[in-house]
Amino acid sequence: MTKLSPLQIERLQYQPKLPSSLQNGVNSLELVEGSATQSVRDQEQIQKLFANTYGKPTVTFNSTSSSNSSEVKNVGVILSGGQAPGGHNVIAGLYDALKNANSQNKLYGFLGGPSGIIEGKYVEFTDEFINDYRNTGGFDIIGSGRTKLETEEQFKSSLEVCKKLNISAVVIIGGDDSNTNAALLAEWFVKNNTGIQVIGCPKTIDGDLKNEQIEISFGFDTATKTYAELIGNIQRDANSAKKYWHFIKIMGRSASHVALEAALQTQPNVTLISEEVEAKKMSLSSIIDYMSDIIARRANNGKNFGIAVIPEGLIEFIPEMGSMISNLNDIMATLESDSTFTSASSAEKFSIVESKLNAENAKVYSSLPALIKEQLLADRDPHGNVQVSKIETEKLLIEMISAKLSEMKKAGSFNGKFSAQSHFFGYEGRCAFPSNFDADYCYSLGYNAFALINFGLTGYLSSVRNLTQPADKWIAGGVPLTMMMNMEKRHGEMKPVIQKALVRLDGPVFKQLQDNREDWAMNDRYLFPGAVQYFGPSSVCDITTVTLQLERSKELASV
Amino acid sequence: MTKLSPLQIERLQYQPKLPSSLQNGVNSLELVEGSATQSVRDQEQIQKLFANTYGKPTVTFNSTSSSNSSEVKNVGVILSGGQAPGGHNVIAGLYDALKNANSQNKLYGFLGGPSGIIEGKYVEFTDEFINDYRNTGGFDIIGSGRTKLETEEQFKSSLEVCKKLNISAVVIIGGDDSNTNAALLAEWFVKNNTGIQVIGCPKTIDGDLKNEQIEISFGFDTATKTYAELIGNIQRDANSAKKYWHFIKIMGRSASHVALEAALQTQPNVTLISEEVEAKKMSLSSIIDYMSDIIARRANNGKNFGIAVIPEGLIEFIPEMGSMISNLNDIMATLESDSTFTSASSAEKFSIVESKLNAENAKVYSSLPALIKEQLLADRDPHGNVQVSKIETEKLLIEMISAKLSEMKKAGSFNGKFSAQSHFFGYEGRCAFPSNFDADYCYSLGYNAFALINFGLTGYLSSVRNLTQPADKWIAGGVPLTMMMNMEKRHGEMKPVIQKALVRLDGPVFKQLQDNREDWAMNDRYLFPGAVQYFGPSSVCDITTVTLQLERSKELASV
Repeated sequence: MTKLSPLQIERLQYQPKLPSSLQNGVNSLELVEGSATQSVRDQEQIQKLFANTYGKPTVTFNSTSSSNSSEVKNVGVILSGGQAPGGHNVIAGLYDALKNANSQNKLYGFLGGPSGIIEGKYVEFTDEFINDYRNTGGFDIIGSGRTKLETEEQFKSSLEVCKKLNISAVVIIGGDDSNTNAALLAEWFVKNNTGIQVIGCPKTIDGDLKNEQIEISFGFDTATKTYAELIGNIQRDANSAKKYWHFIKIMGRSASHVALEAALQTQPNVTLISEEVEAKKMSLSSIIDYMSDIIARRANNGKNFGIAVIPEGLIEFIPEMGSMISNLNDIMATLESDSTFTSASSAEKFSIVESKLNAENAKVYSSLPALIKEQLLADRDPHGNVQVSKIETEKLLIEMISAKLSEMKKAGSFNGKFSAQSHFFGYEGRCAFPSNFDADYCYSLGYNAFALINFGLTGYLSSVRNLTQPADKWIAGGVPLTMMMNMEKRHGEMKPVIQKALVRLDGPVFKQLQDNREDWAMNDRYLFPGAVQYFGPSSVCDITTVTLQLERSKELASV
Repeated sequence: MTKLSPLQIERLQYQPKLPSSLQNGVNSLELVEGSATQSVRDQEQIQKLFANTYGKPTVTFNSTSSSNSSEVKNVGVILSGGQAPGGHNVIAGLYDALKNANSQNKLYGFLGGPSGIIEGKYVEFTDEFINDYRNTGGFDIIGSGRTKLETEEQFKSSLEVCKKLNISAVVIIGGDDSNTNAALLAEWFVKNNTGIQVIGCPKTIDGDLKNEQIEISFGFDTATKTYAELIGNIQRDANSAKKYWHFIKIMGRSASHVALEAALQTQPNVTLISEEVEAKKMSLSSIIDYMSDIIARRANNGKNFGIAVIPEGLIEFIPEMGSMISNLNDIMATLESDSTFTSASSAEKFSIVESKLNAENAKVYSSLPALIKEQLLADRDPHGNVQVSKIETEKLLIEMISAKLSEMKKAGSFNGKFSAQSHFFGYEGRCAFPSNFDADYCYSLGYNAFALINFGLTGYLSSVRNLTQPADKWIAGGVPLTMMMNMEKRHGEMKPVIQKALVRLDGPVFKQLQDNREDWAMNDRYLFPGAVQYFGPSSVCDITTVTLQLERSKELASV
């Protein structure tokens, strides 16, 4: 028998909560249609590309007393992209709803992400198999992958596999790109009269898949709480030892939602927000000045310690860095296959690169520490871009601030000590046991996805709303995927994509940081969230993120 | 009012459990003396150095029905050295016992570690002050410090401060070195007829302060559980994405207890144990070979991912590295003030160092990646030693394994991919909210420390034993500090010190790893401990470490 940790054993027993509308099962539902929808922008183009699935109404479900019987349906499910806590519960909810509708129904899991449906690699779920994964973290139940499902050939292969397994609906659990692909597949299946439906589920710890219809993607709650635990623990350490500045970079791709939420949960001394850096066109040196000033002022108060939270994507949002990186990507495309370059020493490589960059960008590149110069020349991603996640921005800032403070010391404007530690948190939070919120939310999303299937809908995203209320008051339904789309340039071509949500500088979440940051910088308002709790008082175990509470505060105020 | 996190609010209400002998209060105790003791080694020398405090009996407490009154006593308390979860509860337990004995008693906290008692910097504890810190992590209640309390002058200053505050006992909460100093201070106070007692409390996350009398130091339980949470989360991520090897370095100084415990809680593919490396005289290249072999064999099974746990102190235990580092420390003593050297480029520095090291050590140094060569030349500690904690051993291993696997690929003995991520966990765990175990254990240690004071004892370490049993069955008492001492060379001089416990290669804890590591290497036996829980089922919230359970398994078997 597989050995399990004590928490694993207990969490397997947890019964996730459902919205009250879904509590009587899938066969006792009525569909309530809202009004027809349109895409957020570029309506004409999106409608043209999605001629068969565009403009559908939003829908919600009501529970009814009557019980309908339900035809036999086989469904396939795919995990797409990076891990997020709760993915297993989406599948468990989907499975339970499907079996609740008709015990003859089958759920297939495609292995290793979207490539599973193309290559026909799958498992059939059984009670025994699925029960081992309830309320656990990770995507290891069927694995995930990053194959983009978007070509005619891939769609045809997928159709063949679905036909073979008699699958009449596919659920794609993914982020904005994966759900864009879900919309394309849904459209293709309708256009070709296959009768196969496609439903998406909103997944990503990054929190950038949200809009008027989707309050939050799953995984954001657990991941940010896990990072906040670690930041809080380090704050307590810093405040006890009083000798280090900790620079903590937080995963989250381009958007700063994760860093911002973790900061609101912990109240560190400095929080950088990429979207603000870009909007204010802050140069690297102005960021260094801003942070050095806080460090120097704290030192004047006898505090040679502090905490700085840095979003993973920062570097690309600093205007001159973004420009230099883009120039560098072009240059590296040829240099990477040039043996004179590849066999050169680091110092020689730096000179070659500087001679090829345009003057302004060369100046920026040359100003960077050697470590960062090297990381900027490291392996490109498959699209030829530098992998910004591998640039140690936290160390870049430490090194440049350290130099700045030495200058300030000579000039008499810094009288303290500066000793720093760097951290990067990402992999620590993507596969944590889902919080009660994510366990419930994911289970509801999966359960609800089957309800959408059962009503014959396609091209919809499973939607569960009203999330700051207790689970029984959550509102289950669906949103047409095309409603969230617009046209954007990708690899030089205009493509229909789901809009990515960045941090809104005019929103209540950023405002909470803005209103408090001078206070948090100088006074120590550290909060210590501690480890995610699953069993204790509701105030500790069941509340969701600060972000969601602030964003939904209007609704909360009206309750 | 200070804003608190939901968990902080709840944890302030937690009532730590006491051994049943202490539950009736400090005035209802009887002291049971064991037989006289002697030091673990070097008895003659230790006895000579501790003429007034040597040889005392171990003691335990029994609860009595009678209640004695207790004279007014003022006590001072010091937090010494690195943070460990539960320090605040030691102070809370001490305070509660002291007020329980006589409400006129006062507890003073010396600020910023041992320097507080020397410089007379202190606070007086009140209910209100102490209540804010119950069951919280960190040492921020009074701060900590690393000043060594060992000179005649320091002892005299401490005496003056104690006289001024009418303090008749000092409690020092610290690791092996701090408790060695506690023994020296206790001896000096007796020798000089000051009437002031000294009691130690065993603190350190490193787990290296343990012996026949002390089952474990406090903080080890919470810190290892926090690291195990993170390792488990990363394992789940690795097993989901199936594309990275994660190399995770774990804090813990010289001994590998922390890495070993975290590994037993999570069952990663590779765990290095410094003590084994030293005992087997494993060279760096043999470690690289060992790990590369596992990576290649897993790749043959289609698994291009895995987890390796590495103890912080590893590098010094690799014989040729230890020798080279020691040679390098001597060389750097002069080079650090040589301006030709300090102004040289990295490459020039490497050549200079290689020309000065002896031939064997130069070869070792020259074989290392540039990053590590640079880190080895970075700032020395106050004793002129390289700060091994700042050497990124995890990156050293990744870089050398990567080179080795490239060779193996050419030779046809490696057919996989190797992509690695590195992590270092330490600051994340030292200030976590103490687990229920540490909250109870620390509170009991502090409470018990006052009981020892109340019976007039000095030069004792507060001891709470039988820790794998429920708290009410714990055995409270005291152990003479001299009993744990021997003579060791420090800075060229023989000094009395408390023996540090390294991982015993003949013990049941290491054996558990040894018996399973081939299985864990090839098959994925990952355990996912999850976040530390405070409110749930006892099986999740109240059990202590695997280390302690294995070490006490004889006692457990007899229950």
